[in-house]
Amino acid sequence: MALTFRANSITINLTFYNSTNKPFSKKTLIPTKIKTRPIYHFNSLISFVPSTSSSMSVKNGGLSSTVIKSSLIDPDGGPLVNLVVPKSERDLKRKEAESMPKVKITKIDLEWVHVISEGWANPLKGFMREDEYLQSLHFNCIKMKDGSIVNMSLPIVLAIDDNDKVAIAESQDVALVGPNGDLVAILRSVEVYKHNKEERIARTWGTTAPGLPYVEEVITPAGNWLIGGDLEVIEPIKYNDGLDQYRLSPSELRQEFDKREADAVFAFQLRNPVHNGHALLMNDTRKRLLDMGYKNPILLLHPLGGFVKADDVPLDVRMEQHSKVLEDGVLDPKTTIVAIFPSPMHYAGPTEVQWHAKARINAGANFYIVGRDPAGMGHPTEKRDLYDPDHGKKVLSMAPGLEKLNILPFKVAAYDTQAKKMAFFDPSRAKDFLFISGTKMRAFAKSGENPPDGFMCPGGWRVLVNYYASLQNEESQQPAALSS
Amino acid sequence: MALTFRANSITINLTFYNSTNKPFSKKTLIPTKIKTRPIYHFNSLISFVPSTSSSMSVKNGGLSSTVIKSSLIDPDGGPLVNLVVPKSERDLKRKEAESMPKVKITKIDLEWVHVISEGWANPLKGFMREDEYLQSLHFNCIKMKDGSIVNMSLPIVLAIDDNDKVAIAESQDVALVGPNGDLVAILRSVEVYKHNKEERIARTWGTTAPGLPYVEEVITPAGNWLIGGDLEVIEPIKYNDGLDQYRLSPSELRQEFDKREADAVFAFQLRNPVHNGHALLMNDTRKRLLDMGYKNPILLLHPLGGFVKADDVPLDVRMEQHSKVLEDGVLDPKTTIVAIFPSPMHYAGPTEVQWHAKARINAGANFYIVGRDPAGMGHPTEKRDLYDPDHGKKVLSMAPGLEKLNILPFKVAAYDTQAKKMAFFDPSRAKDFLFISGTKMRAFAKSGENPPDGFMCPGGWRVLVNYYASLQNEESQQPAALSS
Repeated sequence: MALTFRANSITINLTFYNSTNKPFSKKTLIPTKIKTRPIYHFNSLISFVPSTSSSMSVKNGGLSSTVIKSSLIDPDGGPLVNLVVPKSERDLKRKEAESMPKVKITKIDLEWVHVISEGWANPLKGFMREDEYLQSLHFNCIKMKDGSIVNMSLPIVLAIDDNDKVAIAESQDVALVGPNGDLVAILRSVEVYKHNKEERIARTWGTTAPGLPYVEEVITPAGNWLIGGDLEVIEPIKYNDGLDQYRLSPSELRQEFDKREADAVFAFQLRNPVHNGHALLMNDTRKRLLDMGYKNPILLLHPLGGFVKADDVPLDVRMEQHSKVLEDGVLDPKTTIVAIFPSPMHYAGPTEVQWHAKARINAGANFYIVGRDPAGMGHPTEKRDLYDPDHGKKVLSMAPGLEKLNILPFKVAAYDTQAKKMAFFDPSRAKDFLFISGTKMRAFAKSGENPPDGFMCPGGWRVLVNYYASLQNEESQQPAALSS
Repeated sequence: MALTFRANSITINLTFYNSTNKPFSKKTLIPTKIKTRPIYHFNSLISFVPSTSSSMSVKNGGLSSTVIKSSLIDPDGGPLVNLVVPKSERDLKRKEAESMPKVKITKIDLEWVHVISEGWANPLKGFMREDEYLQSLHFNCIKMKDGSIVNMSLPIVLAIDDNDKVAIAESQDVALVGPNGDLVAILRSVEVYKHNKEERIARTWGTTAPGLPYVEEVITPAGNWLIGGDLEVIEPIKYNDGLDQYRLSPSELRQEFDKREADAVFAFQLRNPVHNGHALLMNDTRKRLLDMGYKNPILLLHPLGGFVKADDVPLDVRMEQHSKVLEDGVLDPKTTIVAIFPSPMHYAGPTEVQWHAKARINAGANFYIVGRDPAGMGHPTEKRDLYDPDHGKKVLSMAPGLEKLNILPFKVAAYDTQAKKMAFFDPSRAKDFLFISGTKMRAFAKSGENPPDGFMCPGGWRVLVNYYASLQNEESQQPAALSS
């Protein structure tokens, strides 16, 4: 099966074979040179240097191309999309876009542009039109033209307001302008349809209670219309926050897995610091995969990099903490890739965990670790979890379109006060175990108190303590009138 | 393909063949005699007399059996279930049930027992366990063991309260007791799980606004637990309201379609009186099917018979009105079957219309007419339709598991003031058309005012006028203290 897709500004002709067939062409990895800007003392997160178009230019009919192997798992619904305009065409597109109606998008809209442009939401080629939106909302999946199903549990939509709608009128194409005023993308063959916020919220979250972080941040202030269409992204989305080097696209991750000769990739989605319980689980998973006969399982430690709620630990602090975890040897850098998943967070539990898993298929992961209450949070107005903690795992295991992914349920780890380390919970001696929640962990870090020995590697813990100390410092420096 | 299913108290060995194969055995229709209790002067609704077990007893290995042809459309997910216990076993089951924990069910729960027992929800064999419930809630469909998908958009669940849960404890089987204290059914291999009402409501209706009729009537007063399991229904569910003869099961309807040698069945779901616009549409659909080459398309005029909101016209009045429509020749009794669909109404728009369509597949319909805003209503707290009027049709046409059903979108009919009859709306002379909503129709009938000539057949209209007159009469006879 020969497929063509475009990775960033390069068109790549990709040849896939059944696992039983030998590939015609050996994988060709082109050595690249790029200056990364390490922000940590020891950059243990990443040995991969992203390819650039210039270093990969093998001329082929006017388009750069190379053949890479991607043997682990096929992307969802066809070849990986890459919606970034080739460098040579950017000026033309910019000129063309000048004459189009402009829509200003938010920081979080831009995160979605990033997500869509790299194929995390494969085979989505832009913001959803109404047919896709309705299927996502009602069925958590979309039917392809050939009758096959792809999972698509979160509506990936762009809202516009009444003025935008009037300005767009009958235009087929619209230019998207970023929060800084830069031209970001063109949306082609647009379709404008009603944004029924109440229905969207109810069907996505299973509640309409006030206080859902994504709803308050994104949906409530948004316009009453949605605009769907095909994206052409003018330049790769960059954040210039010192972390762009960790934002590997699905195709870059696939290349990296191939370079490491991974025969299994297990993904771990997280938005919290890594403690030794997580590490135990990840190391145990690797052992289980080795026992299953895999020779080289690679861990994709994949922190979420988009919007998170205010009391979550910020991305840069988490990345530094993850760096320490690898530096301290809790996870093995040789068999671990840490990269940033650019999606914003919905906190939509069983609906969102499908998105988290599906996106990792597109990045080449064929095993997905799912924990207790994934993408869950407390109910915003009632004293209970918003979701049944088991529903995420159950819904994920039954989700249409995710059959090809191997779901690995999370074993519960807790602090074993006898062994003085994190260990898998043993119900026969339950009293020996101490459960340290995220809230408790944050309370320890805030107060400067140390958690029990063996809860987290010392280097990682110091990152958190420093972060909370800096927060308190900031707060104490605010004038009293502003801090209320 | 030989299939075995149980229809009411008879086990039937059913043999299906591909449409290209000749069946081995000709369809055997056994003449039956049953005393019906006609409540209308001219019973034009129905020429079919339901089979009874006694009249169909052809002994076969201790179980009654016969071979019927069912060439129209396969039931969803396998042979039609029939969960009514054979007559010979009822006493034993009753005795067995005496020792089981008892759960008292409501009138509407009983409607669901009826629905499930006859295979309307095929292949569901009882109230949903959690796996089925979650799939229904999140995906509007359920995956079968063989990987195939059946549509299942409404959670068909039974709620119990804390006391019930304590009484059931570790019991495997539970007896269900009807509102009158009769033993109704046994629920086998039960599973009790949490009833998160907020989530169920939000995901089913796309709103949690107060005032949704089914929510207020059924869900809000219900217990905090759901109980799933396999149903064994002790006797066929009867209502003894003079309308039981019209409550044909899916297998009875299939027999009737075969008896009439239907080569297409088009279903029309309704919960309102039939006006001439509906009739125009149904007659036009028949013409279209004849044009498509079908020789004998049969209309299943299928009023919903379960719970409806307080201001809907009651079932007995609607049935009498439908009777007049056939008596007055607006619809042709030769090519029309009127039967009652025993399901309660959710008013859940795009989610519910899938249920309405799916259930009719099980009854043998291969064409389904879908209108504007099917199963919709006004938003309970805002001045707007609860659903986008086009979403029902769109969602239905994309719904997983309904691919085999032909969806026929409703053409808009309105009163043509020039032709003085109901006609398909012609936008080129829009001003000639008068739209008469259900609300307006009820206002006419309540005030005793006549609608424009040709809006509804006079016999049918008289039924409605009499109904509203009797209502006003009743109201005026209420003591003042009670009528406030």
